[in-house]
Amino acid sequence: MADTEAREEVTAEELADLWPVLSPEDRVEGFHLLPRAEAEDLFLTRSARDQADLLRAVPHEEQRSWARLLAPDDAADLVQAAEPEERERLLGLLDEQTRRDVRALLAYAEDDAGGLMSPRYARLRPDMTMDEAIIYLRRQAQERLETIYYVYVLDDAQRLLGVVSFRELFAAQPGRRVRDIMRTDPVTVRDDQDQEAVSRVFRDTDFMALPVVDAEGHLKGIVTVDDIVDVVEEEATEDIQKIGGMEALGAPYLEVGFTAMVKKRAGWLAALFLGEMLTATAMARYEGEIARAVVLALFVPLIISSGGNSGSQATTLVIRAMALGEVRLRDWWRVMRREIGAGLALGAVLGTIGFLRIVLWQAVRPTYGEHYLLVAATVFCSLIGVVTFGTLAGSLLPFVLRSLKLDPASASAPFVATLVDVTGLVIYFTTATLILSGTLL
Amino acid sequence: MADTEAREEVTAEELADLWPVLSPEDRVEGFHLLPRAEAEDLFLTRSARDQADLLRAVPHEEQRSWARLLAPDDAADLVQAAEPEERERLLGLLDEQTRRDVRALLAYAEDDAGGLMSPRYARLRPDMTMDEAIIYLRRQAQERLETIYYVYVLDDAQRLLGVVSFRELFAAQPGRRVRDIMRTDPVTVRDDQDQEAVSRVFRDTDFMALPVVDAEGHLKGIVTVDDIVDVVEEEATEDIQKIGGMEALGAPYLEVGFTAMVKKRAGWLAALFLGEMLTATAMARYEGEIARAVVLALFVPLIISSGGNSGSQATTLVIRAMALGEVRLRDWWRVMRREIGAGLALGAVLGTIGFLRIVLWQAVRPTYGEHYLLVAATVFCSLIGVVTFGTLAGSLLPFVLRSLKLDPASASAPFVATLVDVTGLVIYFTTATLILSGTLL
Repeated sequence: MADTEAREEVTAEELADLWPVLSPEDRVEGFHLLPRAEAEDLFLTRSARDQADLLRAVPHEEQRSWARLLAPDDAADLVQAAEPEERERLLGLLDEQTRRDVRALLAYAEDDAGGLMSPRYARLRPDMTMDEAIIYLRRQAQERLETIYYVYVLDDAQRLLGVVSFRELFAAQPGRRVRDIMRTDPVTVRDDQDQEAVSRVFRDTDFMALPVVDAEGHLKGIVTVDDIVDVVEEEATEDIQKIGGMEALGAPYLEVGFTAMVKKRAGWLAALFLGEMLTATAMARYEGEIARAVVLALFVPLIISSGGNSGSQATTLVIRAMALGEVRLRDWWRVMRREIGAGLALGAVLGTIGFLRIVLWQAVRPTYGEHYLLVAATVFCSLIGVVTFGTLAGSLLPFVLRSLKLDPASASAPFVATLVDVTGLVIYFTTATLILSGTLL
Repeated sequence: MADTEAREEVTAEELADLWPVLSPEDRVEGFHLLPRAEAEDLFLTRSARDQADLLRAVPHEEQRSWARLLAPDDAADLVQAAEPEERERLLGLLDEQTRRDVRALLAYAEDDAGGLMSPRYARLRPDMTMDEAIIYLRRQAQERLETIYYVYVLDDAQRLLGVVSFRELFAAQPGRRVRDIMRTDPVTVRDDQDQEAVSRVFRDTDFMALPVVDAEGHLKGIVTVDDIVDVVEEEATEDIQKIGGMEALGAPYLEVGFTAMVKKRAGWLAALFLGEMLTATAMARYEGEIARAVVLALFVPLIISSGGNSGSQATTLVIRAMALGEVRLRDWWRVMRREIGAGLALGAVLGTIGFLRIVLWQAVRPTYGEHYLLVAATVFCSLIGVVTFGTLAGSLLPFVLRSLKLDPASASAPFVATLVDVTGLVIYFTTATLILSGTLL
């Protein structure tokens, strides 16, 4: 009883706040408890996936009125988020004009500018006077335009001639014409441009909206910066999950089914495991050396993990710099030079710490035998080699992936670590053979 | 000569495009070649750090006119990006009103809503009629307002009473008053709220701008969504670099000085190395076992890296979910349960692959001695233990850090890997002792 009462007092704000951690059933239950106006606010600010779930949960006769709240780009996202067999039914809930818009939007790939844009922009003709323009805009403002902040000036063939901000229209003298005050040659994005590239244009220009044109310069829609916030967040999440060594989940952590999540993680983990098996092969190759000098085995985890860690740093730096457009394919040599230097410096730091550790430890508690200085020298030299190699491999790999048209973020930290582990063992045991043969080996 | 001619033809757009990869000297040189209007466009879209550099490069008598192009929030960022000893001189370049605004903004922490906001918002009084409102707004539009899309309704004490969109004003009947059409109880952010929290409010509400109020409800400024794009990108970059196992660089990769970059990487790398040294101690503890059964050493890299990889997956998932607000502190037990399940499942997958690998390899080329089945069983059991532990540690650590008020992103993949390496060795050799004592050990 107390529970029911508490639930009845829920507000849209509280529900939005709790949303990420509620079960689908609790969401629907809370949603039904809200007054219509608050429920609408909540509905409109949910993700496309959640909107589809909510729509499925309202009574059949109400679905049409809920679906019609959505702007065409949001309706398109909702249709895309729904199961394929449900899509036609959802399209059927929309009014004629919106349905046409949505079908046009659905033709674009989800990650392209065309898949992000809204076809509801404010438009003017170049020869309108200020007075005509204001009257015409006032009429357009009755429709649900995405923004009236920017107004787009089109010729008869719907080609984009220029842009004028509402503020400029508002401040201009009544006698002038749109043509006189519009900015020609506006910044545009292409309808087939990737959303990551679109987000970079927004970052570099500080516009609140950008017009989307096709190859012939026809205006197809506009992308607003609030959609870009979602894009930037989504792309960062994908990159972070790939860097962590798994497939991007594509949905909030707690909402992905357990089996789906384990599958996405098991694939990469098994692939890394298969790669890492080469370490067992490499180790078997040096079994004789280990049997003769067990002391060598003691430093194996230390050496290979140092290569992995430095490679992980280098690869994350380069992946992120590429995603932000700070580093391009042709900068590879500049990055290489820098990373070779960084690798040598970092390797020297770790090598020195390692050397001192062995020498000091030996003084306190003799563990490493009479040739401990040679062992320390082996560790020192190996660390320089392994860390430099790790840094180099970690920074080069994103370039290789990008030049193969693959996602640089797949050069995940665990992937680089695995690559470096095998090579690290070879570097370590080769160094050991060079330094220790005649004494320990 | 050809080089000079080519340079003289540079446009603002080309320069903006090349910007990230140009040296500071080339940037200034290109900037000087642009006509004033294009140079202004370029200047206004650069980062605060770049603006400070450019400002330093223009002739002394021109600096004032360049500095005055900046809105107060951008000017505050520029002052913040400059060296401390230069700040007063930069403030001196601004006009009286802007300088006052900038000083007020500088009092806020850079990462707070107050540090992001602009004090130039459009405002109205509640009792104005539509006609008065339009005239008053028209006068405000002459100033450089951040946006006229939202208009804020204030009482005499500057407390926020409501918000009205320009579109609503524009579409309302002339006789009505602002009070009648404004939305009361608008969504606000607090001036001392962290920018990450502010970006979540934007994501959850789809507004283009939000009012920033102090504890008493006075309107201090507005934050626009285009600034949030930068915040989201910046926060993701910081998290990605921390996940990669280093301090956040705080500037584009190619622009950070070599020494500064190596320092930021060496710190964490050395800390991880010191932690990883425990593996040498742990290995020394099992030196006897290794000497008796060298075959055990062969699988050390495989076992510990599997723990590291699964831990890296778990920690990145949880860190990102926390940053997006999908998972909160109190969800720890839900996440734990899920991750224990995932760890067991993933461990079983890897364990099975490892078991089969040893058995099949032995059939083709006997390497692992007569007790190879027991060795395979050791690897199988250890992998389940190590992967489960890695997954658990990786997912728990961000919760521990957050509950200690530290940044969960510091639970970097390499940090978790290091933690898991030591424990992994203990799990592996303990399992080996249990399974192999009496035969190999």
